[in-house]
Amino acid sequence: MAQMVSEATIAHVLFLIAMEAEAGPFIAHLALQPRSLSHPWAPCLVYTGSYKGCTVTVVTNGKDVSGVDNVGTTPAALSSFLAITELSPDLVINAGTAGGFRAKGAAIGDTFISSSFCHHDRRIPIPGWDAYAKGNHASLSCVNLVGALGYKMGVVTTGNSLDHTEMDDKLMLENDASVKDMEAAAVAWVAMHADKPFFAIKVVTDIVDGDRVTHEEFMENLGTAATSLQKALPQVVEFVVGKRVADL
Amino acid sequence: MAQMVSEATIAHVLFLIAMEAEAGPFIAHLALQPRSLSHPWAPCLVYTGSYKGCTVTVVTNGKDVSGVDNVGTTPAALSSFLAITELSPDLVINAGTAGGFRAKGAAIGDTFISSSFCHHDRRIPIPGWDAYAKGNHASLSCVNLVGALGYKMGVVTTGNSLDHTEMDDKLMLENDASVKDMEAAAVAWVAMHADKPFFAIKVVTDIVDGDRVTHEEFMENLGTAATSLQKALPQVVEFVVGKRVADL
Repeated sequence: MAQMVSEATIAHVLFLIAMEAEAGPFIAHLALQPRSLSHPWAPCLVYTGSYKGCTVTVVTNGKDVSGVDNVGTTPAALSSFLAITELSPDLVINAGTAGGFRAKGAAIGDTFISSSFCHHDRRIPIPGWDAYAKGNHASLSCVNLVGALGYKMGVVTTGNSLDHTEMDDKLMLENDASVKDMEAAAVAWVAMHADKPFFAIKVVTDIVDGDRVTHEEFMENLGTAATSLQKALPQVVEFVVGKRVADL
Repeated sequence: MAQMVSEATIAHVLFLIAMEAEAGPFIAHLALQPRSLSHPWAPCLVYTGSYKGCTVTVVTNGKDVSGVDNVGTTPAALSSFLAITELSPDLVINAGTAGGFRAKGAAIGDTFISSSFCHHDRRIPIPGWDAYAKGNHASLSCVNLVGALGYKMGVVTTGNSLDHTEMDDKLMLENDASVKDMEAAAVAWVAMHADKPFFAIKVVTDIVDGDRVTHEEFMENLGTAATSLQKALPQVVEFVVGKRVADL
C-alpha cells in the first residue's frame, strides 16, 4: 500500500464504527455532535468534534429499516468511501467488536490492532483470482501505539457472517488470523484506493476457536467488550493527537 | 421498495457490469465512449453514449492491481453508489454471468431476469439480524420485458465466492434461488437506498446443482454466456427505449 504519508501533524482522524452501540460511549465521551454530509441518501450517520486541536469524526453505518445496524462489508465500504471522499481525513481507523483466536493469545475483552487484512468468505479457485478474493491488504504499522498502550497485534480476517463454517475455519487459519470481524477488509480496500493511512482496533467479544456458540457468547460479552472499546478509543485518540502518521 | 417511479419516458439507463469481458461487446455494439466521473480515485470505469434518444451508460468495476476484475459485492456497491449519485439514471440494471439452478429450469446460456435478491453468505443467527443478513430486496417487476423477450425469471442469490459450500447450498435453497451471482444483492441494497428502479439480467455459465466443478464449467462456458449476454443486452435496451419504468 503506497500511502501518501504526510509529514504534517494529524489534523483529522476518522473512526468508522459499524454499530451505534459500539460507537455511542465514544461519541458521548468526546461530546461529538451530529453533522450531515452533502450526500443526500447514504444511510450512514456522522458525528464530529475536536480534541486538543485535532478533528475527530465518527461514522456509523446507520440502521436497516428493520431497526438493526447495517453491519457487514457493503455498508462499511459505502460509509468509508463517502466519508473519506467528503471529509478527506489524515488517518482512518475501523473500530469495533470481533471474535478472537485463543491460538493467537486472544481473551475476552482484549484489544487488538491490525497487522494486515484478509477475507475468509471470498473464494475464487482460479489462479490470480484467488489472491484478489483473499485480499491481504496492508495495515498502517502502529508499533509505537501498540507498544505504548499494551495492545495485541494480528491479522484481521473479515467475513459477512457472525458464525463460521468449517470452510471459514480453514481459510481463517490460512489467513493466520488473530481476530475475525465483519467489516475491516472492505474498509481496507477502500482506504487503499483512497491512499489513506488505515488500521483497525478490535475488541474481543467471543473466542472463535473455543467451545461456545458464537452468537450466544457474543451477546453475553458485548457489555465487557464495549467497556474495553470505551477504554481503548480515548487512549488511541490521546496517543494520536499531536503526532504524525509516521510516529504511530 | 418504495420506488420513486417516474411517469416520464426513461431518459437514462445505467448498466452495472462487473467484468470488462462481460461488458466489452455491449460497449462496442452501442459505440459507447469512455468518460470520467468527478470522483478522483474510484476504480470503476464509465462508458456512455446514446441510443434512439436514450442515454445508455455502462459502468464496470475496474481492475485490481493484479490485473483481475474487481468482482464481488464491495466494488459493485461502490460503483453503483458512485454512478447513481453522479449520473442520477432513471433505471439501474446489473448485468452479467451467473450460475443457474437446474431445479429451476436453468440451462447453460439461459437469460434470467431478477424477481428479487438475497444473500447466501451473510449468516447472523440472531432474531432480527438474520433477516437483515439475508437481504431479500425487491426487484423492479419486468413482466412485460420478460414476456416480450422470452427470458426466464427468478430469485438472484448473491455471495462473494465462485464456488459453494454445503452451507451455501442450504441457504441458496432457502432463498428459492434460480441464479447465483457475486454482485446483485449488494447493488440492490444501494439502489433501494437511492430509491432507483432496479433489476438484474443474468446469463447462465454453469449449473450450480449439477455435477461439474463450478470454476471449470465457468471457464468453459464463459464464451457461450458472453454471446447470450451480447444478444440479450441490445434486446433489453431496444425494449426499454421510449417506455416508462411502469411499462416494463
